[in-house]
Amino acid sequence: MQVNGKPYRTIWPATDNKAVEIIDQTTLPHVFTTLRLESMRDVERAIKDMQVRGAPLIGVTAAYGVALSMKHHASDVALKATCDILLASRPTAVNLRWGIERMRDFLGPLPENERAAAAWHEAARIADEDVEICSKLGEHGSELIRAMHEKKQSTINILTHCNAGWLATVDWGTALAPIYKAFDARIPLHVWVDETRPRNQGASLTAWELGQHGVPHTVITDNTGGHLMQHGLVDMAIVGTDRVTATGDVCNKIGTYLKALAAFDNGVPFYVALPTPTIDWTIQDGVKEIPIEKRAAEEVTHIAGLSEDGQVRTVQLTPQGSHAANYGFDVTPARLVTGLITERGVVKANAEAMKVLR
Amino acid sequence: MQVNGKPYRTIWPATDNKAVEIIDQTTLPHVFTTLRLESMRDVERAIKDMQVRGAPLIGVTAAYGVALSMKHHASDVALKATCDILLASRPTAVNLRWGIERMRDFLGPLPENERAAAAWHEAARIADEDVEICSKLGEHGSELIRAMHEKKQSTINILTHCNAGWLATVDWGTALAPIYKAFDARIPLHVWVDETRPRNQGASLTAWELGQHGVPHTVITDNTGGHLMQHGLVDMAIVGTDRVTATGDVCNKIGTYLKALAAFDNGVPFYVALPTPTIDWTIQDGVKEIPIEKRAAEEVTHIAGLSEDGQVRTVQLTPQGSHAANYGFDVTPARLVTGLITERGVVKANAEAMKVLR
Repeated sequence: MQVNGKPYRTIWPATDNKAVEIIDQTTLPHVFTTLRLESMRDVERAIKDMQVRGAPLIGVTAAYGVALSMKHHASDVALKATCDILLASRPTAVNLRWGIERMRDFLGPLPENERAAAAWHEAARIADEDVEICSKLGEHGSELIRAMHEKKQSTINILTHCNAGWLATVDWGTALAPIYKAFDARIPLHVWVDETRPRNQGASLTAWELGQHGVPHTVITDNTGGHLMQHGLVDMAIVGTDRVTATGDVCNKIGTYLKALAAFDNGVPFYVALPTPTIDWTIQDGVKEIPIEKRAAEEVTHIAGLSEDGQVRTVQLTPQGSHAANYGFDVTPARLVTGLITERGVVKANAEAMKVLR
Repeated sequence: MQVNGKPYRTIWPATDNKAVEIIDQTTLPHVFTTLRLESMRDVERAIKDMQVRGAPLIGVTAAYGVALSMKHHASDVALKATCDILLASRPTAVNLRWGIERMRDFLGPLPENERAAAAWHEAARIADEDVEICSKLGEHGSELIRAMHEKKQSTINILTHCNAGWLATVDWGTALAPIYKAFDARIPLHVWVDETRPRNQGASLTAWELGQHGVPHTVITDNTGGHLMQHGLVDMAIVGTDRVTATGDVCNKIGTYLKALAAFDNGVPFYVALPTPTIDWTIQDGVKEIPIEKRAAEEVTHIAGLSEDGQVRTVQLTPQGSHAANYGFDVTPARLVTGLITERGVVKANAEAMKVLR
């Protein structure tokens, strides 16, 4: 996607092939900077400090972390140590484990002297595969937008929650991929961006990346979507997901469930965009079985933004002595989901329909 | 209610009877200060700058504004000018008009030389009436909490949205009055406080007043309530309202509708607390008929909080160039409301049941 009129991915090999470069997502939307990661330790820190975030991007970054490590030490011991260190950088990230294990399984059988070059190519392949998956699901999702536009014959208003855009992947994104594809195909659309408290990934990341690519959008508080739907101002909702059960329950950023309820109550189609590996076929009941991460209360009690003096400052919102609770995700029951947009097509969110994705 | 262990109202006559004193609500929760309002112009500014807010409190403050004006000029011309100026301080506030018109109608027939003293007493009477109404609805609501506790035999978890506490009234509050009454009666309870973006009245005012009175509470983002309800962590919700239709539709701070949907989906009782004058008997369909105020986008794009240097600072949350929309209220259809808690008892939210309140 575009940044300042120039195409970017979120991660790319440096021209000297001695490092990988990333967009530092912690300083967005106020400052755009790229960082050069030269070692496995640089990668570990970037993941830990959330300079890269978003499940697919974390997996790809970790793969590059393994590849960078192999340039220096390619023994079995080094490979194992590298994988262990990177795995611990964000323990709950499923894609992190996936990316690292794929690299380990690929490199393990190779002779030590071939590992460095092979790892570099494999990491690039993982990145390209991610782009391909997102591009495909974007195509499938954009057909829904196109069909809706052919019927409505005016601007399609799409609501999204959190950031499931290209910043969360290598390119295109998941929830935003259909939007970029439709926008690039000149279908008139406008995006309602939930700010997505507490970490405000909507206001800071989704708004930024839509703005950079030129997509019309409006930031709203998380409280607003229901009112907009009651008044016909939302034609469809598209969100991403961290995990989907075999029955179509959707775990995603806290607050997704409330928006799905409002969509259902107002007959607004509610879609979830995901690469099929996001489906956890071992789980049947999302509300009962998916453990929900509780995060630091400070993400609720404090917030960072651009101060009048040009500094990014953190301010406290709550009174001294008031506690806060910070649940990271919630589960939207399948009955509220209109469809799953995947790289293999759009399917209904139920066990029977999802069989084609197995 | 208590502040630093001392009982306060939100507004009270100064001991010299030459002014009225208020709590400055713009500096809460970080700084507690009281202000002395000596003239009608002081009152106008306090309302305009939201040093006082909350529908009932605005009405009472305006009444004191008329009374202060009468001390200086008590002619018919002065009375009319005073009312006109105060009416313009927040044009959409229904209670503002109500408080001013009650003073005008009361003072109009009196001889000029009696108006100053009579106005001072009448303003105090309006304040006392507000306290009495809130106290009564608090008693009725606390019976619901008591009954729930007798059944559950453990801590009752109550979710509230925005600030409908004593800071919005003269004392007790509306949504929080049942909570204070139950807490004072030693019923074990805990309050989930929606932070209530964009103006964060939950995180800044509700959390502060509950904390000052010693009521256990936890601040959450507006996205969180649905997840809590899915997991049995909310026993009931109580919110305030700005306007209720003759059919029981409830207009309240944006986001209330989403919480009502979640309560309904999970079988959690959803109550609305209100003085009966809040009912607009002329309106049938809240979603179609109640105009929703659009407020400044800056309330979404910027937020104020306590900086590390001890200053209250405003920071920008969104990227340059991203627009924001700020809808102040939404309407919760009566079908999602379990009951209306009023000073005259608890009634169901439908036209038939509400007849007893006419």
